[in-house]
Amino acid sequence: MSARPEDAGDGATLAGATVAVVGLGVVGGSLVRALAAMSGGPRVLGASPNAADRAGAERAGAARTAVEPADLIAEAHVVVYAAPLSAILEMLPRHAALLRGDALVTDVGGLKAPVLAAAAAAGLRDRFVGSHPMAGGEGSGFEGGRADLFRGAPVHLCADPAVDAARRARAEALWRAVQARPAWVDPAAHDRLMVRVSHLPQLVANALALALEDQNVSPADLGPGGRDMTRLARSSPHMWTDLLAHTAGEAGALLRAVAERLEDLADRLERGDGVGVAELMTRTRAWHGTPVDQAKDEEPGR
Amino acid sequence: MSARPEDAGDGATLAGATVAVVGLGVVGGSLVRALAAMSGGPRVLGASPNAADRAGAERAGAARTAVEPADLIAEAHVVVYAAPLSAILEMLPRHAALLRGDALVTDVGGLKAPVLAAAAAAGLRDRFVGSHPMAGGEGSGFEGGRADLFRGAPVHLCADPAVDAARRARAEALWRAVQARPAWVDPAAHDRLMVRVSHLPQLVANALALALEDQNVSPADLGPGGRDMTRLARSSPHMWTDLLAHTAGEAGALLRAVAERLEDLADRLERGDGVGVAELMTRTRAWHGTPVDQAKDEEPGR
Repeated sequence: MSARPEDAGDGATLAGATVAVVGLGVVGGSLVRALAAMSGGPRVLGASPNAADRAGAERAGAARTAVEPADLIAEAHVVVYAAPLSAILEMLPRHAALLRGDALVTDVGGLKAPVLAAAAAAGLRDRFVGSHPMAGGEGSGFEGGRADLFRGAPVHLCADPAVDAARRARAEALWRAVQARPAWVDPAAHDRLMVRVSHLPQLVANALALALEDQNVSPADLGPGGRDMTRLARSSPHMWTDLLAHTAGEAGALLRAVAERLEDLADRLERGDGVGVAELMTRTRAWHGTPVDQAKDEEPGR
Repeated sequence: MSARPEDAGDGATLAGATVAVVGLGVVGGSLVRALAAMSGGPRVLGASPNAADRAGAERAGAARTAVEPADLIAEAHVVVYAAPLSAILEMLPRHAALLRGDALVTDVGGLKAPVLAAAAAAGLRDRFVGSHPMAGGEGSGFEGGRADLFRGAPVHLCADPAVDAARRARAEALWRAVQARPAWVDPAAHDRLMVRVSHLPQLVANALALALEDQNVSPADLGPGGRDMTRLARSSPHMWTDLLAHTAGEAGALLRAVAERLEDLADRLERGDGVGVAELMTRTRAWHGTPVDQAKDEEPGR
């Protein structure tokens, strides 16, 4: 096995390489669109069980497609798993024997420790670089994607120490090629942060939407603030329960912490403690970095 | 007193009228900017205790200004109170004797029942139309406003039955002149809705931000979803405690309802009930109106 396959260029570029993307939804579909749009870019293959997503990718000239990843991945120098987390975990051991010895294997899953563990268990420890692009969209499927989805987006990368420099360089090159900003992180620290900055806001949006529905409030009644606070209530239940299966304990504890904060605010309101409510609001305003001299009397954007 | 003052045109237009805006922050400042930009628009006066806001309005050629509303309102055919709710409630009785008998008096406060009650108590029952423009911004002060702030924004209007048709038409004309969409509402129903669609999301954003701060998460760590969910944590504490003083009991009960929803989600997560979590997420997705056939496997916009 060579870290610099003679027919697929240097690790730091994608010229001459074949990239197979497994999954052609918003993220996978956007990736094949972006790669296909590069001048001097790689040959792009895409697999999806979804006929509309395959047809969309073919019609856009973004990828040659197949139903079965197994029909594509053996010829790929770079394989990107862009599927729900549970599907990635299920495919890695099943596909391991089909992958080239010199391949870079990566993914786009929202948690990294479970994927790295599955890759190691599948014998891909030295070929696997986990990726988490912080980009997505309101839509779904190939039609919901766009070639510039990753422009400027942070991409968290992580890998076992066994992964060589050429593969690391190629993983960075893949994301730079689509205008994203790759940076290396520790997988456990990444996942710990994601529970806080992603899973927790998601579940709070769900809880707020449920309470509004209980009150017979329609989304059409919301102003800009309420719309922002419930936008995530549209997220895919399937994708989320996949992620939450790995973070349930920590996410549960954080939800209870937010519930406690809500009860504290309710206590202050109910005892007429306006000063106490303002104190907490001043704290969140400072946390958000609003300069103190802007703490004036404006009306909000509701 | 005449409903159609001979020197200030017809109720349905602002031509020839003098409009005084009390408060030159984001909302009041945007209103004077928009009115001053009209061709054939009214004469525009503005009062503010804030020197920077007055200077901004004068420099923009948007209004002749004064520190004291009392120096301007006696000559105005339309007086708009664009100040925090507590300031409006305090000014109405103090200014009532100074206002023209033929004036239309209005405001931009986020709650309508308390303002209508204060106007009636001040003897302005037949001159007062409450307004609540559903527009605002991230900034603050005159500099945070813009002439197109109200373009397309709903404006809730309400008034005592004693208010005549000409004044109602003039209130509508005021908001239509700045491209907003006025509509008449019942003040109690308006306020009940605002607690749900505005006060509740505001306080949930504060609670989430407090929990994130407790976890040493920085706003810079957030993705698009987390940013949306905490944007309101920057809102003005002063303005909000003013509003919440009138809705504390109801807001408190709603916060406890969201806390219960969070505890229920935490319970489901902690007992490994992924199906139960997905069921609630499917419900909020349906509430939001996402077609069922879009319930696919996309990655979210985190």
